[in-house]
Amino acid sequence: MKSAIYPGSFDPITLGHIDIIERASRIFDNITIAVIQNKSKTPFFQITERIDQITSIFKDNPKIKVEGFNGLLADYANTKKVYTIIRGLRALTDFEYEFQMALINRRLNTNIDTIFLMTDEKYSYLSSSAVREIAKHRGNIRDFVTTNVADAVEKKIMELKET
Amino acid sequence: MKSAIYPGSFDPITLGHIDIIERASRIFDNITIAVIQNKSKTPFFQITERIDQITSIFKDNPKIKVEGFNGLLADYANTKKVYTIIRGLRALTDFEYEFQMALINRRLNTNIDTIFLMTDEKYSYLSSSAVREIAKHRGNIRDFVTTNVADAVEKKIMELKET
Amino acid sequence: MKSAIYPGSFDPITLGHIDIIERASRIFDNITIAVIQNKSKTPFFQITERIDQITSIFKDNPKIKVEGFNGLLADYANTKKVYTIIRGLRALTDFEYEFQMALINRRLNTNIDTIFLMTDEKYSYLSSSAVREIAKHRGNIRDFVTTNVADAVEKKIMELKET
Amino acid sequence: MKSAIYPGSFDPITLGHIDIIERASRIFDNITIAVIQNKSKTPFFQITERIDQITSIFKDNPKIKVEGFNGLLADYANTKKVYTIIRGLRALTDFEYEFQMALINRRLNTNIDTIFLMTDEKYSYLSSSAVREIAKHRGNIRDFVTTNVADAVEKKIMELKET
Amino acid sequence: MKSAIYPGSFDPITLGHIDIIERASRIFDNITIAVIQNKSKTPFFQITERIDQITSIFKDNPKIKVEGFNGLLADYANTKKVYTIIRGLRALTDFEYEFQMALINRRLNTNIDTIFLMTDEKYSYLSSSAVREIAKHRGNIRDFVTTNVADAVEKKIMELKET
Amino acid sequence: MKSAIYPGSFDPITLGHIDIIERASRIFDNITIAVIQNKSKTPFFQITERIDQITSIFKDNPKIKVEGFNGLLADYANTKKVYTIIRGLRALTDFEYEFQMALINRRLNTNIDTIFLMTDEKYSYLSSSAVREIAKHRGNIRDFVTTNVADAVEKKIMELKET
Repeated sequence: MKSAIYPGSFDPITLGHIDIIERASRIFDNITIAVIQNKSKTPFFQITERIDQITSIFKDNPKIKVEGFNGLLADYANTKKVYTIIRGLRALTDFEYEFQMALINRRLNTNIDTIFLMTDEKYSYLSSSAVREIAKHRGNIRDFVTTNVADAVEKKIMELKET
Repeated sequence: MKSAIYPGSFDPITLGHIDIIERASRIFDNITIAVIQNKSKTPFFQITERIDQITSIFKDNPKIKVEGFNGLLADYANTKKVYTIIRGLRALTDFEYEFQMALINRRLNTNIDTIFLMTDEKYSYLSSSAVREIAKHRGNIRDFVTTNVADAVEKKIMELKET
Repeated sequence: MKSAIYPGSFDPITLGHIDIIERASRIFDNITIAVIQNKSKTPFFQITERIDQITSIFKDNPKIKVEGFNGLLADYANTKKVYTIIRGLRALTDFEYEFQMALINRRLNTNIDTIFLMTDEKYSYLSSSAVREIAKHRGNIRDFVTTNVADAVEKKIMELKET
Repeated sequence: MKSAIYPGSFDPITLGHIDIIERASRIFDNITIAVIQNKSKTPFFQITERIDQITSIFKDNPKIKVEGFNGLLADYANTKKVYTIIRGLRALTDFEYEFQMALINRRLNTNIDTIFLMTDEKYSYLSSSAVREIAKHRGNIRDFVTTNVADAVEKKIMELKET
Repeated sequence: MKSAIYPGSFDPITLGHIDIIERASRIFDNITIAVIQNKSKTPFFQITERIDQITSIFKDNPKIKVEGFNGLLADYANTKKVYTIIRGLRALTDFEYEFQMALINRRLNTNIDTIFLMTDEKYSYLSSSAVREIAKHRGNIRDFVTTNVADAVEKKIMELKET
Repeated sequence: MKSAIYPGSFDPITLGHIDIIERASRIFDNITIAVIQNKSKTPFFQITERIDQITSIFKDNPKIKVEGFNGLLADYANTKKVYTIIRGLRALTDFEYEFQMALINRRLNTNIDTIFLMTDEKYSYLSSSAVREIAKHRGNIRDFVTTNVADAVEKKIMELKET
């Protein structure tokens, strides 16, 4: 039984994230998608909304579990006794930040290893912040996220505009 | 008639930006400098101030038009029916961000192509934020921007200090 | 009449190169594909073979001319009185080398400007040397080059094996 | 008498910074650690706290002097008549930003040269912001900073939690 | 049963490679170290020598198998019906090349996924070519390779000097 | 007395190298330019020619000594009891290779520290191989090297053409 954790903000989850999860599913028996509840920033979606969106997307995949977490990833991994962290790499911009985080996590807990998977090159430009930005300007985000997420993003934008 | 759009915040326009515009003028018949009005951030100069500064700099160049815009660049390009975007690259730090934006714009509108021009290496360190930072500390910015912009920056700094 | 030069070895020309040429065709009225005859290395295809292959691909596009050249690009540009150089950028590995070459060319001839276009992300991994390497190991290269080039590459590999 | 300035926020000073200072001590006769008092951001430690922490660490090293400063580094260097700036480079992420700053400083004052020293690779992931982040989540920071700094960070976190 | 292939020249295998294999052993049930027999270059060690060295190092690890291979990695993976490729990343220089190879392999065989593991930062500078270069100049390589490999490298250098 | 070694092939020495040496002269009391005699490659200039060219350029600077060396830099530093290595960084392409070499040298001899100085941005594109390439195609290299070196390069090109 090989298990792994895929941590992230997923605010919102994109087709790029889903691509990474599907690739990881071929390698691991269990994957916990660990949704970071970052108290210090105002998220676009509340953590419960994000957990619901992701749970809905993977409801037919018994390998995938979705959880929120708070605190240090190294501590979370320790509590779950799962020491393999999955991270996606895009051709652009991710590498140095990811490497730095992976080295810090390894130093905080020597059992931890981070494995990197590459997104399909067709998602190499895609990020949650780009999705939010495009949606704020009423651009079409349906090539970048699933239908349930696109609906939720557009509804949220409406609510934000009203306030 | 070859037309292109040169989008940016230009807060303020630097000699590096002007260098790119002059290089682009040799290739294109018309260039629209599209000044981004970013509502979510507090700019240093108001958009009308930035448009006035740039218009003044290029008042003798009939190829150059200056406009403000808001929203997605892909939509703006579509409205103007101009599908070539000009962006400057400095030797340092710009490449990955620019590439990502260009891929997103192409995905949002397949007609759009971004062309990159290189600034003169003597501007490779120059950015609008560096100019603002130097000015705030009373450093000399007259090697980095035109005289009308330097005057406006220094006047603005005085006003900000008084409040 | 806007003209540009697209220099390269094209040993062989890939779908990534063709993608760049098609993008450049929307901006320029005339493009000269300048095939470098590099005396110091043993090419895979002779320069006449490469010129024939490229000419055949663009035979229906009146904007495109194909020529061999030898010597410095800066001198070649001067002789033709065409001062805009086109180069393709892939997300991976090209940027620094291309920037360095562009700066040298500009220094050798201040009239020269290099403009960079991005390949489609689906070609971001593609290079002539990868095509040759795959072909040598009998891999399928027909997703990477045109049919006439694939046929020629496979024929050349056969000839090289026999000797 | 060779003198140099090592500027930084040091909020807090890490073992990586100390490693750079010790390497620089083999080359220079005098090093001024110039602690930046950044008015525009809320620091974690007040500048007087940071100066005290660093002074305490180097109290037995007569080559090291600690000072706060405000304004442009180029002006500060001029006032002190010390024109060599020391900066540390980690394998990850520092290079482009550092290069840009060094070029700006050289432009503002042509006497200034920045020299770069490499941290030990075992500190390649380490940054002040990582230390603060780990401490906020009650992680162990004693591999990353000296004891006096670790104590101060943990005390500050307690105070911040109480408010 | 999760299986993976770790391809490379291993000319010679370094402690950095061994570190990657040990990390991969925690994730996979079987790992085939696939030693590339590159016909076009003159290797330092013959492929049989390299296979013997690696087999000797992992003789007590039943998860590890060592094989030579020739041709395209995508074809080799297909023949073995093992579609996960392991590659190590160092902080320095590997990323872009590795990414490009991974994308090409994925294009040649869509089943293939490459996963990247990070070497310990203490090996971030280490490469087979550095080991050979140091050995040629009679430097001490025993911090970089296992004893059996160090002995073999030094013996080979002696033989090369005699001819 | 602060001493340093500036190692390199200098085949030929460029204005970029000279710029680094002049910057280093403000920091160090003695600088040994250590010209690498690389047996495994055919140099453009013989090592004695290169030593003569550099000696001639710095004949009026008593701080500068020129020597040839062979073998490992770490051993050479040890023999001379000079443990500070100077290397130049250009904005483009040098960083990763230089960092890797510096880490290897530090591992081979823990006393060794490499310090990096930045070339003037106007030399950011310049390299010895670019100078040789331009000269081979009869381009003008007099903006890139000193007069004595330009004369020698052009004479050497003539001799190579005749054989």
